[in-house]
Amino acid sequence: MKSRAAVAFGPGEPLKIVEIDVEAPKAGEVLVKILYTSVCHTDAYTLSGADPEGVFPAVLGHEGGGVVVSVGEGVTSVKAGDHVIPLYTPECGKCKFCLSGKTNLCGAIRETQGKGLMPDGTTRFSYNGEPIYHYMGTSTFSEYTVVSEFSLALVENKDVPLNKVALLGCGVTTGIGAVHNTAKVEEGAVAAVFGLGAIGLAAIQGLVQAKASRIIAIDMNEDKFELAKKMGATDFLNPSKFDKPIQEVIVEMTDGGVDYSFECIGNVDVMRSALECCHKGWGESIIIGVAAGGKVIQTRPFQLVTGRVWKGSAFGGVKGRTELPGMIEDFMNGKIDLDSFITHNLNFTDINEAFDLLHKGESIRTMLTYGE
Amino acid sequence: MKSRAAVAFGPGEPLKIVEIDVEAPKAGEVLVKILYTSVCHTDAYTLSGADPEGVFPAVLGHEGGGVVVSVGEGVTSVKAGDHVIPLYTPECGKCKFCLSGKTNLCGAIRETQGKGLMPDGTTRFSYNGEPIYHYMGTSTFSEYTVVSEFSLALVENKDVPLNKVALLGCGVTTGIGAVHNTAKVEEGAVAAVFGLGAIGLAAIQGLVQAKASRIIAIDMNEDKFELAKKMGATDFLNPSKFDKPIQEVIVEMTDGGVDYSFECIGNVDVMRSALECCHKGWGESIIIGVAAGGKVIQTRPFQLVTGRVWKGSAFGGVKGRTELPGMIEDFMNGKIDLDSFITHNLNFTDINEAFDLLHKGESIRTMLTYGE
Ligand SMILES: [Zn+2]
Ligand SMILES: [Zn+2]
Ligand SMILES: [Zn+2]
Ligand SMILES: [Zn+2]
Repeated sequence: MKSRAAVAFGPGEPLKIVEIDVEAPKAGEVLVKILYTSVCHTDAYTLSGADPEGVFPAVLGHEGGGVVVSVGEGVTSVKAGDHVIPLYTPECGKCKFCLSGKTNLCGAIRETQGKGLMPDGTTRFSYNGEPIYHYMGTSTFSEYTVVSEFSLALVENKDVPLNKVALLGCGVTTGIGAVHNTAKVEEGAVAAVFGLGAIGLAAIQGLVQAKASRIIAIDMNEDKFELAKKMGATDFLNPSKFDKPIQEVIVEMTDGGVDYSFECIGNVDVMRSALECCHKGWGESIIIGVAAGGKVIQTRPFQLVTGRVWKGSAFGGVKGRTELPGMIEDFMNGKIDLDSFITHNLNFTDINEAFDLLHKGESIRTMLTYGE
Repeated sequence: MKSRAAVAFGPGEPLKIVEIDVEAPKAGEVLVKILYTSVCHTDAYTLSGADPEGVFPAVLGHEGGGVVVSVGEGVTSVKAGDHVIPLYTPECGKCKFCLSGKTNLCGAIRETQGKGLMPDGTTRFSYNGEPIYHYMGTSTFSEYTVVSEFSLALVENKDVPLNKVALLGCGVTTGIGAVHNTAKVEEGAVAAVFGLGAIGLAAIQGLVQAKASRIIAIDMNEDKFELAKKMGATDFLNPSKFDKPIQEVIVEMTDGGVDYSFECIGNVDVMRSALECCHKGWGESIIIGVAAGGKVIQTRPFQLVTGRVWKGSAFGGVKGRTELPGMIEDFMNGKIDLDSFITHNLNFTDINEAFDLLHKGESIRTMLTYGE
């Protein structure tokens, strides 16, 4: 079938809206009509060409919501008409990782997904007869996309607005999940959040849910403080306003450091600050931001020997198919604020403008509507 | 009073056995007659001059056992005649750290201890009228030493051989404690231990206690494998025998990596290997070795984002006054093998020979006896 898609033909080029060909889903696969998608820094990173795993031409996009059109052989967990959220972290439920009870990093389709291919090693997208690669197992920048059954969270209640919960496909879940699953923050804890993009703001929401007693929000862009405050942050720091390292500032203002810190940017220097602002003896720092390929983090081992812990997680340690239904319910019950993340709404065909808004730091999320 | 002591007069110089003056214990302090002491890499590190916190002249030594001679004002937890083990990680029981339930890093006398002073900011040692510094709050290289009450673990049963349990004052407790307190290793776990000195061998004992299913012992010196095997290691690797990084070798032989790894050397490159040999999704690496000042550890943040955890601990996370009695009992019941660590026995006056044996890698521990 034919599908409108915003194709990344080459690194650094704007996306081009074209009509591509989408093949029917094979065994274990599902054809989804995407209704809404947003744009995330990870899409921008891959589009820039800096992602060493990036392949072109490709259909990017990994935060979306849609409706199942048809399913391939053997698919039992979703059927035509179901509302779904694509997951870039799949959950097969039966691999070594899924069964470990210790991680959400399902291994079932990891190898092909990382290469922009479907599990059988081919693509379902083509343009003028040439294959186009998939992306993160989701490719929400095509109106019709094919994904593995393992890559879909079911939205059971059809009253749930897909143009909001689409955000649960990436940053929001990452931030909230990291607080609960990775850090396991307890009531009364003191925390620092570095970077007030979607992930950082979501981490703040998670910290409020966990009843943290103090939430220190850090960003060079002070325009972000208002939203951080609305979401529950209690202290606000702009590192460029201090003449000493921000970790020292935080250690002083917290009588020794924070119990938990979250790096939500992907900057390796900030990752060091986030670790070193932790309290001696027990402070834990969680890396959530994705750094550019080849970059390394560093610190003195003394930081760890004196009791700090350095951790990280992807997709907030959340098992999407199992846990997203609960988060959708939290949203419907007002326990997660998704609306505040959506600073802009545009038509899908204006997708390059959504990238511009992201680059300029003017948007948190732009929600794109495919329309008719 | 007068006391025989092995004094470090300057960096890089052999210790000199001289008669020093020891003042009576002040409030909260205890005068201890040391009967036995061993020599550890940390003493050698400080003596070399590489320790940025090292001060001279000083009485080094932090693994020992002795008898209380007299106590200063207000001391209630020990009395003359008690058998004790000095602790370089004190436990006051009432500071923010001791009360946290999360760390053994007591803060009560930390600042003065780090400067080679007693809590009141002075020293109890002098030679020819000039002050001599303390070391790690213990200074077991003097027959009579003065320590804080917080720095003494009581050995209640006087049948316990002090020339064995002296080892619980450092490396052995560090290795065993890191397995139980820091890593919390569970039955069936797969583990790697880097470096087969006293700490590494103790970690192996801890892993056996925890019922680890596989214990991979790694050292460049294959002479160490025999003792590691005796203590319970199941696999033995010499990194210099492989033409690829040892972490890759370990990941391959364990189908994805180990559940826990322990760096027991203090080498920042090995610390990276130890982290990267951990299993994606859940592997935890514990830094126990003490690196030289100024050295940094590094890795790609991807290692943490994909679920590995980087930790460390000092003195194995063990609260000495509370937990050493249990470890002494474990030793008396055969659950901890201390005898195998003691490869050499010498008279205290041969202390420089004990350092030589350590440098040459010929000894695990040399137990020095003060004698009459
Ligand atoms: Zn994203
Ligand atoms: Zn799986
Ligand atoms: Zn030691
Ligand atoms: Zn204390």
